[in-house]
Amino acid sequence: MIAGGIEAGGTKMVCAVAETSEDWREQKEPPHILARAQIPTGQPEETFAKMLDFFEPWDIVSLGIGSFGPLDLDRRSRTYGFVTSTPKQGWENRDFAGTFARARRIPVGFDTDVNAAVLGEVAWGAARGCETAIYITVGTGVGVGVYCNGGLLHGMVHPEAGHILLSRAPGDRYRGRCPFHENCMEGLASGPAIEERWGARAASLAGRREVWELEADYIAQAVADYILVYSPQRIILWGGVMHQTQLFELVRERARERLGGYVRHPMAEESIGEYIVPPALGEDPGVLGAVCLGLLEREYHKK
Amino acid sequence: MIAGGIEAGGTKMVCAVAETSEDWREQKEPPHILARAQIPTGQPEETFAKMLDFFEPWDIVSLGIGSFGPLDLDRRSRTYGFVTSTPKQGWENRDFAGTFARARRIPVGFDTDVNAAVLGEVAWGAARGCETAIYITVGTGVGVGVYCNGGLLHGMVHPEAGHILLSRAPGDRYRGRCPFHENCMEGLASGPAIEERWGARAASLAGRREVWELEADYIAQAVADYILVYSPQRIILWGGVMHQTQLFELVRERARERLGGYVRHPMAEESIGEYIVPPALGEDPGVLGAVCLGLLEREYHKK
Repeated sequence: MIAGGIEAGGTKMVCAVAETSEDWREQKEPPHILARAQIPTGQPEETFAKMLDFFEPWDIVSLGIGSFGPLDLDRRSRTYGFVTSTPKQGWENRDFAGTFARARRIPVGFDTDVNAAVLGEVAWGAARGCETAIYITVGTGVGVGVYCNGGLLHGMVHPEAGHILLSRAPGDRYRGRCPFHENCMEGLASGPAIEERWGARAASLAGRREVWELEADYIAQAVADYILVYSPQRIILWGGVMHQTQLFELVRERARERLGGYVRHPMAEESIGEYIVPPALGEDPGVLGAVCLGLLEREYHKK
Repeated sequence: MIAGGIEAGGTKMVCAVAETSEDWREQKEPPHILARAQIPTGQPEETFAKMLDFFEPWDIVSLGIGSFGPLDLDRRSRTYGFVTSTPKQGWENRDFAGTFARARRIPVGFDTDVNAAVLGEVAWGAARGCETAIYITVGTGVGVGVYCNGGLLHGMVHPEAGHILLSRAPGDRYRGRCPFHENCMEGLASGPAIEERWGARAASLAGRREVWELEADYIAQAVADYILVYSPQRIILWGGVMHQTQLFELVRERARERLGGYVRHPMAEESIGEYIVPPALGEDPGVLGAVCLGLLEREYHKK
């Protein structure tokens, strides 16, 4: 049994087909990826056409899409499955899920890129078996996927926890990159914010301790808040910025400091090294999570 | 059919028995309270005994307890149903739920006071029919009850969103009241923090605009963060401090400002007056929510 997934980003679309089975929930290993392609994100029509070409030879039972947003995830809405108010030119109010459902006549699951990623890690990765877990990506933007009470969190729209408001570090005079919020996580701590603040490419800043201490402090503030609000059983932390892996230990230390011993649980204290972790699915939580979204959608349609 | 509930606070226990029916989910009105009592929270043995005396004449099918915490809510744990590391003298590591389950041999539901309150409002109040909603209480402490994906949020422990970290307002030199966190919501914005900052009882500060503008600013920061992280469909805001009802409009305005137009949904914009609201159950969301916790526990045991 073969299932498809798309990790839809603002610059590229990662498409994959994976081998799985009816008892995919019980599989010890993540589905084996049989083929994959990266397609640059151009205008919707041509991009949709190229992705459909990729999937064309494969008899997939379902497709899942984890997409950049914002998205309409309300099944009762006329525009369910659409990318909505994105600043990405040409993509505003485009029917992403429906295009594939009509072309392939299979169940198409649809959610945010970060919700797909946390789902992948819950199904087959570092958050396996958790009922509540989050996936934080710190890269071009900051996003948080939230799995709670055994499902992906949507609510009124969908969480946008990458924009939570932080306390500015004393002496940090950088104005922030978010056009909406003066002091939000994405504005202060995304990859482009680091480069703009320090006037250099992140890779060339690797040896400058003050850069990563400030960055760890902002990430840790956000992580402490996420622990307080979600009480997750596991926190997966990734994205381009976290490729500076020295950040992990700094973030763990400072998140503990910020919590001040208030959350009494070994995972928030001596075992924090097993609590705040990189993904177990390497670079694939997004696309494997998208495969999982499709498999869940197939079960939803069977009910 | 009669069901019992306890809203367990640090200073008093509100006990009630309410008339309900098997189809309590469909009832338009909240259950009618047949009897209630307030019992001062003394040492556990005497307090348990007085509460058992109150319920003794009533043939209740279930009991629910919404309690001050922290609590052990992990059903697999040896200390499930216990109050755990509370500073409240005599109550540390006490088996609250088990005491009543053994004495009455009925299903006993157990959760935090704020989770009970949000459940009451979801079942019969201002968040009726919501799949994701929160209940914020700003009083002696700050607590947040979280209902998401159709259930109360627990996770690793249970949310402690009243302690999220805020940006201190420029010029606010008050050191905060939380022994764990320098800048957390509870430390900066609880009732005792207001009184300590301004050196006067809250009631006598009613006419001082600067007091309530600062307070609204802190509450709005937290509310904006809760909107970003939970994407709730309704926000119930209450507690002793919110009896200063002029705060509602200030909090709504400032939460909108803080969000900066980023969350595009009428409820977060022009309809924010219907979004951030006081409870519909008046002073009873906690105890009616506890009744609901018991009814849910009864269904859980039937399964």
